[in-house]
Amino acid sequence: MAVYTEVNDEDLARFLELYEIGQLLSFKGIAEGVENTNYMLHTTSGSFILTLYEKRVETADLPFFLGLMEHLFERGVSCPLPVRDKAGNNLNQLSGRTAALITFLEGFCIKRPQPAHCAELGRMLARFHLAGRDFELTRQNALGPAGWAPLFSSFADEADTIATGLRDEIAGEIDWLSANWPQGLPEGVLHADLFPDNVFFIGDKLSGVIDFYFACNDVLSYDIAICLNAWCFEENYSFNATKARALLKAYSEVRPLTQAECGALPVFARGAALRFLLTRCFDWLNTPPGAILKPHDPLAYLRRLRFHQRVSSIAEYGYDTP
Amino acid sequence: MAVYTEVNDEDLARFLELYEIGQLLSFKGIAEGVENTNYMLHTTSGSFILTLYEKRVETADLPFFLGLMEHLFERGVSCPLPVRDKAGNNLNQLSGRTAALITFLEGFCIKRPQPAHCAELGRMLARFHLAGRDFELTRQNALGPAGWAPLFSSFADEADTIATGLRDEIAGEIDWLSANWPQGLPEGVLHADLFPDNVFFIGDKLSGVIDFYFACNDVLSYDIAICLNAWCFEENYSFNATKARALLKAYSEVRPLTQAECGALPVFARGAALRFLLTRCFDWLNTPPGAILKPHDPLAYLRRLRFHQRVSSIAEYGYDTP
Repeated sequence: MAVYTEVNDEDLARFLELYEIGQLLSFKGIAEGVENTNYMLHTTSGSFILTLYEKRVETADLPFFLGLMEHLFERGVSCPLPVRDKAGNNLNQLSGRTAALITFLEGFCIKRPQPAHCAELGRMLARFHLAGRDFELTRQNALGPAGWAPLFSSFADEADTIATGLRDEIAGEIDWLSANWPQGLPEGVLHADLFPDNVFFIGDKLSGVIDFYFACNDVLSYDIAICLNAWCFEENYSFNATKARALLKAYSEVRPLTQAECGALPVFARGAALRFLLTRCFDWLNTPPGAILKPHDPLAYLRRLRFHQRVSSIAEYGYDTP
Repeated sequence: MAVYTEVNDEDLARFLELYEIGQLLSFKGIAEGVENTNYMLHTTSGSFILTLYEKRVETADLPFFLGLMEHLFERGVSCPLPVRDKAGNNLNQLSGRTAALITFLEGFCIKRPQPAHCAELGRMLARFHLAGRDFELTRQNALGPAGWAPLFSSFADEADTIATGLRDEIAGEIDWLSANWPQGLPEGVLHADLFPDNVFFIGDKLSGVIDFYFACNDVLSYDIAICLNAWCFEENYSFNATKARALLKAYSEVRPLTQAECGALPVFARGAALRFLLTRCFDWLNTPPGAILKPHDPLAYLRRLRFHQRVSSIAEYGYDTP
């Protein structure tokens, strides 16, 4: 949520000479993104986002993320398009950072999504999954089942400072999920972080999806399970089956869910809740007290996890298997 | 340089219903301005800046600042125009703050202004001064001569921690200026903070001026003196008479300087250097060590002050009195 790297007009002018995007009219640092520095640019040919990747970002992954955006954009998924320079590159150096220029996507995120928004999300996610099938690059999901135990062990000794008994509860869940994780289901490219913050609307219509920096290859249903967690709980932690039904129905109208995928969804939903519980616990314990960016409450995901533990079939998410 | 107040889509929608600016397409918090929170908006009718005034700003002064912008805009000075709502108001409440919507001004500030930029600045400043003549509201200059002694007394005891002897040097300068401050020169509305940060260019052409939150009534030449300090010194503190000549010549072609104004300029230049020396010393001594926003170096203005102390006539600024 900050401009970590200041860019001046002279450095920017040199950088923009590499591209064919018209004359620069304005640029403003924007308070968007936790990891990177972002500027909004107006030129005579339109609006753009300039992203400078800060040190925490693995630059080796950038060709995957940017290539995926271009791949999806070309297949009709509404997302920002990385602009290629005159030499065909979508990455260059600016002010000591690796930087990319991407088209600006109009729209804004919705604080309290309604069922109609969830349906829009479901349709977009299914199109995303279909469009990603022939994307050639791959990236492992660092926050899938194989990543949970190492992440947990990094803070297990402090877990009970967040909530009494949390250490045992997480350990038990990791054991259960590793014994019961469904195998052999359709895989592909996931967004893997489709929170309401990352989906733009204009009115009730979805205008696009942003922030591809957790995208990876994994089981497609896991992406749906992330959305169930992120979009279908109210602020009081109650599950809203109307929203979930809208999401799942709209998804399956574009990419029908198999019987096996339907059966496995409650397990994936537990896994997705655990994944955000783990990262939120880690951030909670590793954020200095005075930090500007307050960490999210981990217990919101403990509540979600406990809900999914009691779910035995996709019908409880409001979805009628055809 | 931060978003102090978060605005969500619901609050913003209610706020925008007061105005007639088309449908909202996007809004982003921008890292602009030290005191306030700013968002950039795209709507179907154009781009806008939404400013939320944070607690440090004296809201009683806002009608002066916004009224001045409107007054100058209507007289052809390129600056943002505060948008009036359907009821004719240019201020409303949003997310617990007083807020204004203003038109977005294309352009960007120049890190290293050249003489041609200084000429553009001079022409604009003269037009600003002429256009301000019939502006009816007034605001006292809190950082004019009457404000220096009280400001200095708030940190005088610590001044020598910045530079040995600084306390005596400032005290002596305040005494000298109060005894020698020119009287009876043309007064009017000043911008009073025309640093390169606040003047936008597209290419070599000035596209507009922003940040009216120090504007006030005072001697017009004092505004010119601020610009001499802010635009005509190099990073090594050397004075660039070519830039100053360009500024003064362009200014006087639009609003001719009187003999008395020419004679007084070296004194005003000392006063302007002292004014920024004082506020920078104050900020330097009152900024917590870990603050994100690093304070400016006060000594850059001590160097300027000493330069002006040795100047005896406007000719030394490169200007040939007609």
